[in-house]
Amino acid sequence: MKIGIIGFGLMGASLALALREADPTLTFVIADRDAGHRAVARQLFPDSVIGDDLTRIAGLSDILFLATPVRTMGAIAQQIGPFLKPGMTLTDLGSVKEQVIRDIAPHVPGNCHFIPGHPVAGRERSGPNDADPLIFKDRNWVLTPDENCNPEALDRLTKLLEGLPIAHVLRLDAASHDRVLAFNSHLPHIIAFAAMLESAKIGEDLGVDMRNFSGGSYDDMTRVAAADPVMWRDIFLTNGERLEEMIRALIGRMDNILDAMHASDEAKLTALIAKARDLKIRD
Amino acid sequence: MKIGIIGFGLMGASLALALREADPTLTFVIADRDAGHRAVARQLFPDSVIGDDLTRIAGLSDILFLATPVRTMGAIAQQIGPFLKPGMTLTDLGSVKEQVIRDIAPHVPGNCHFIPGHPVAGRERSGPNDADPLIFKDRNWVLTPDENCNPEALDRLTKLLEGLPIAHVLRLDAASHDRVLAFNSHLPHIIAFAAMLESAKIGEDLGVDMRNFSGGSYDDMTRVAAADPVMWRDIFLTNGERLEEMIRALIGRMDNILDAMHASDEAKLTALIAKARDLKIRD
Repeated sequence: MKIGIIGFGLMGASLALALREADPTLTFVIADRDAGHRAVARQLFPDSVIGDDLTRIAGLSDILFLATPVRTMGAIAQQIGPFLKPGMTLTDLGSVKEQVIRDIAPHVPGNCHFIPGHPVAGRERSGPNDADPLIFKDRNWVLTPDENCNPEALDRLTKLLEGLPIAHVLRLDAASHDRVLAFNSHLPHIIAFAAMLESAKIGEDLGVDMRNFSGGSYDDMTRVAAADPVMWRDIFLTNGERLEEMIRALIGRMDNILDAMHASDEAKLTALIAKARDLKIRD
Repeated sequence: MKIGIIGFGLMGASLALALREADPTLTFVIADRDAGHRAVARQLFPDSVIGDDLTRIAGLSDILFLATPVRTMGAIAQQIGPFLKPGMTLTDLGSVKEQVIRDIAPHVPGNCHFIPGHPVAGRERSGPNDADPLIFKDRNWVLTPDENCNPEALDRLTKLLEGLPIAHVLRLDAASHDRVLAFNSHLPHIIAFAAMLESAKIGEDLGVDMRNFSGGSYDDMTRVAAADPVMWRDIFLTNGERLEEMIRALIGRMDNILDAMHASDEAKLTALIAKARDLKIRD
């Protein structure tokens, strides 16, 4: 079976490595518009077809993964649609599903199968040099097929993914996926970006090096700020409404805690924190 | 030299273990109002004076660390003030300094030295059973003495702390400390508590287990929600104004990013994220 990967960045390269470890008989066809990324691909997969001609990759793939920033996916689908092999499956690694489905689905020929997907995994790095098949370890891979999805194609993709060192392949409707991910992933990223911008300002104002006064909680709050800007710009632009909803919800929760502080309502404040703690400990 | 520790929780117990490793000739006097905590102290420090009579501990200590929730410190200082040994040094581990100084300083006799302090370290656990001397490893210990501080007392405390596996003993004015810590530590904690409360609501609304769709960024955003509720209630009540200032500042930064999203201003959005990323990578 020929596995196609469009986008040999951190995720695409990690996926290729993980799939090869899972099944050494798989062969790969890889496309990336960055010559440096292609050079890494040639080193790691010397026997593969590697190039920048997406239509060629499309024509060769039995299962094709789009691993590019989410806002590029529509144009890529439009370009490769006419060249997709009959019976093949197109899937993706996008962190947003509803808009990506709207962008991709119209370009997939009726004799091909589009099964949107998202590995709930990542790193704060980018590029194929930081690729690591263990990125997926013990994380779930979510598929968001619609009700018309071909059961055999879904089964074939699911079996392929279950060969990875992931926890489970899960299914979820695209709308729920986008709300949950807006909270679990997109929100911590906007917090991290915002925190780094503000941290620099405070450090400058006070003439202190903020790192000197940071413990683990600062490290946690800001770690993912080192993630890829284009990927995150695209996610924010594609799932903006849901992200904003989650920001407002988080602010509402913080305002609740602040209200208890303003009122010096110790009992309420303790109850809120203790409830949060219980939830985290059971988490 | 006799080291006194009032509050044998996670931090007090970790400090005692770290000091003993640093200098086995030190002896300890330990007070905690919790019988279970005292039992752990007796196991770990069988040759020490251990009890719940704070005034006795106060009378024996050459250097006395207050390691209790910050809002208890004023009352403790009032209780032990008359019993403090002439020439001794009183210090604390409080995450807030200005209010703690206002609470403690009036009760310290003129022949004793009060040197406020704060190890920029911690864990999301609590209690002496989770004590670990490596909590302090490579973290800085901040002292916030005023201009009248006795140089010899400051030197003696600094030398004692420099024996720990910490990075450095740093000095900072109390006001700057409280602004920086409101951002670096108190803000991530209120975010974590708020996030856990909201996460439970979203999971319930959508009928999904949020853990199934979480990667590292969710783990980071919520990790410290498992921290001690009383300790954090007290920090929030004691540094509330500065914490609120930091929440508003973070919201302002997020609104900036949202504005660029609303305007679909790709260039501005990319610039904001890329700047945050550069700051984090240099961080």
